[in-house]
Amino acid sequence: MKVLKGACIIGQSGGPSSVINASAYGAIRTALDSDVITKVYGAAHGIKGVLDDVLYDMSAEDAEELALLKNTPSSALGSCRYKLKDPDVDDTDYKRILEIFKKYDVRYFFYNGGNDSMDTCNKISKFMLKNGYECRVMGIPKTIDNDLFGTDHCPGYSSAAKYIATTAMEIYLDARVYDTGMVTVLEIMGRHAGWLTAASAIATHYGMGPDLIYLPEVPFDLEKFYADVERIYKANGKCIVAVSEGIADADGKLMVEKFAEGANVARDSFGHAQLGGIGVTLANNIKERLGCKTRGIEFSLMQRCAAHSASATDVEESFLAGKTAVECAVNGITDKMVGFKCNRENGYTCETELLDLSEVANTEKKIPREWINEEGNGLNKEFVDYALPLIAGEAHPPYVNGLPRFAKLKKVVAK
Amino acid sequence: MKVLKGACIIGQSGGPSSVINASAYGAIRTALDSDVITKVYGAAHGIKGVLDDVLYDMSAEDAEELALLKNTPSSALGSCRYKLKDPDVDDTDYKRILEIFKKYDVRYFFYNGGNDSMDTCNKISKFMLKNGYECRVMGIPKTIDNDLFGTDHCPGYSSAAKYIATTAMEIYLDARVYDTGMVTVLEIMGRHAGWLTAASAIATHYGMGPDLIYLPEVPFDLEKFYADVERIYKANGKCIVAVSEGIADADGKLMVEKFAEGANVARDSFGHAQLGGIGVTLANNIKERLGCKTRGIEFSLMQRCAAHSASATDVEESFLAGKTAVECAVNGITDKMVGFKCNRENGYTCETELLDLSEVANTEKKIPREWINEEGNGLNKEFVDYALPLIAGEAHPPYVNGLPRFAKLKKVVAK
Repeated sequence: MKVLKGACIIGQSGGPSSVINASAYGAIRTALDSDVITKVYGAAHGIKGVLDDVLYDMSAEDAEELALLKNTPSSALGSCRYKLKDPDVDDTDYKRILEIFKKYDVRYFFYNGGNDSMDTCNKISKFMLKNGYECRVMGIPKTIDNDLFGTDHCPGYSSAAKYIATTAMEIYLDARVYDTGMVTVLEIMGRHAGWLTAASAIATHYGMGPDLIYLPEVPFDLEKFYADVERIYKANGKCIVAVSEGIADADGKLMVEKFAEGANVARDSFGHAQLGGIGVTLANNIKERLGCKTRGIEFSLMQRCAAHSASATDVEESFLAGKTAVECAVNGITDKMVGFKCNRENGYTCETELLDLSEVANTEKKIPREWINEEGNGLNKEFVDYALPLIAGEAHPPYVNGLPRFAKLKKVVAK
Repeated sequence: MKVLKGACIIGQSGGPSSVINASAYGAIRTALDSDVITKVYGAAHGIKGVLDDVLYDMSAEDAEELALLKNTPSSALGSCRYKLKDPDVDDTDYKRILEIFKKYDVRYFFYNGGNDSMDTCNKISKFMLKNGYECRVMGIPKTIDNDLFGTDHCPGYSSAAKYIATTAMEIYLDARVYDTGMVTVLEIMGRHAGWLTAASAIATHYGMGPDLIYLPEVPFDLEKFYADVERIYKANGKCIVAVSEGIADADGKLMVEKFAEGANVARDSFGHAQLGGIGVTLANNIKERLGCKTRGIEFSLMQRCAAHSASATDVEESFLAGKTAVECAVNGITDKMVGFKCNRENGYTCETELLDLSEVANTEKKIPREWINEEGNGLNKEFVDYALPLIAGEAHPPYVNGLPRFAKLKKVVAK
């Protein structure tokens, strides 16, 4: 194995999570401690920071403050949703990246994100290879959506799942306080994959969760939905429903778009619809049909940034993913994403494994149909068995005067 | 002091909180351990359980399970929003309550709730006295709104404040992830008093909170609001705003009603408007005016039931309030509410004190104008100094397999 001396860049991309900083810390700390990596840079707002030549000198940070990243939510270095063009069509960005890599003698690039970020990694890696610039590129997975292909689960998912299950339990208790009828609709993130919404089933498994759960994996039938809710409401006087923001009908049309027929739905730079509001919309419609009190509750940003309720398993695994990416790159590996291979037979074990970037990029992993009940309105035990070990342990951040002590980085821009 | 032997009833009323069960536990445990109190009943759904003759035998509960009430959110016995009539107009309910008290030899009545509950206590106490039935009635305060008169603060407020400040910090970090413009509007509970919304100022005090905070105490001027947001957004590219659901214009008209002009606003049995949606409405309007990305986030039920993030100070004080109510009643006191008298001069101290029910009932405590900044869009240091000790300490519930272990009572109905 050839020792490749040089600097490294660590970047964060896509929507943040409670633990993306734990991965960044795993990578930064390991890189700072390495004999081979000469300088550690953090890219300001992901690949945009590379293109704009805004890199932070991570060695200028206080070691104790850096360590707080393990429990600090959101992306401390800043994130972006910038999508690199196909280099065969327009290689301007790639040439610029190469220029910056040469300027700072960058020989290692670590990118922490979801599907799109793995695609970015893959394209950069191929371009560098084609242009004869030696550089090792590693992807560090992150997405609360848990839809990355090839890995047992994604860092970030477990903490979001823990928040969702915990909050579903608390709302279950709250929604039962009065002896009057009540239907509650929880709206949970997830455009195409229902992993986050499914996490509410863990609360149901504990006897304090939603009665009905609807995921994007199963075509949503509005009349069937109303009938399901009415049946449970009439039997119990209460009904709690969890729906993914991305539930869609048999033609794949989003329910939120169906309700907003004719209205413009905002889209981000990837063309993803900016969803929201289906929970409240369904709650209002149930109110009209059943004449009972209803409440739509959106878990909104809280589900992805509630570091105060993070899973200890997630924090440790996220740190490990970042650390492993750096260790592997230093040992000669490139063009891979660090994934997790888990065993749930006799207790839970989780090991890292390396996946081809090209394999991971732009492939979405959905919940297997057999983990969803036949009616398509709940989860089977297979899902709960899968998810339970992921939410194990509490990674409470350090508290000062009653509030979490989150990291505040100096962000010294490298010259 | 005359020793009054007999049974007691403990009831919970009004909207629940993260710690109302801690108060109930304080009262139940103390009553169960008392030599004077012969039997301990929990009223199913507050005063409705008394009227309907549905009382739970608390001695039938497992002691360890009961102890879990300290960290279990919502009202374990069930709550109600039933308002007793003026006994001079219609004393049917009071006669029925007397009948039930006689049936079970009830000599102690503990009622845990907000303004309306203290009013209920007061009316029952007066009726029993007038009818020569010896019975000691004590109010145990509870309201996340913190608007009870005469007490430094209310059990339940501190945990809600801790959740709001913590979540505001986490959202602050999340909302800064991209380098694109963003205005976030947080909608927080509070019809007439802004205590809950003000709690977000603690996050601002830590450098990670809302830029602007609007309370019901200050008349809301929509044009001034837009100008405030625009100024901060243009300077920073980001702006986080916290608004009380109950913000109203100079004529006292609710902003949510102004926006919904002509539409019917649902009201509960006390005539309170069922609010909601002002955060999203303001966010949508800012989007139109400034052309930037906006997000309205409602803290919804989470702010009152997030026991996983409760204040240890709150849990202990709530327990103390319930315990003190029973101890005082056994010692001959009646017709009082347990309040808190606090000192913040050299560290924080909190002692219980007894307040007249008639004084407390139906008087709302608002934030002093001098604790709000002159512009009416933020809080002064006086508020932060007041609130900081209340959120001190973390009362994490016990966890099993990654989720809180909340109490599950048997609820054996007394015969």
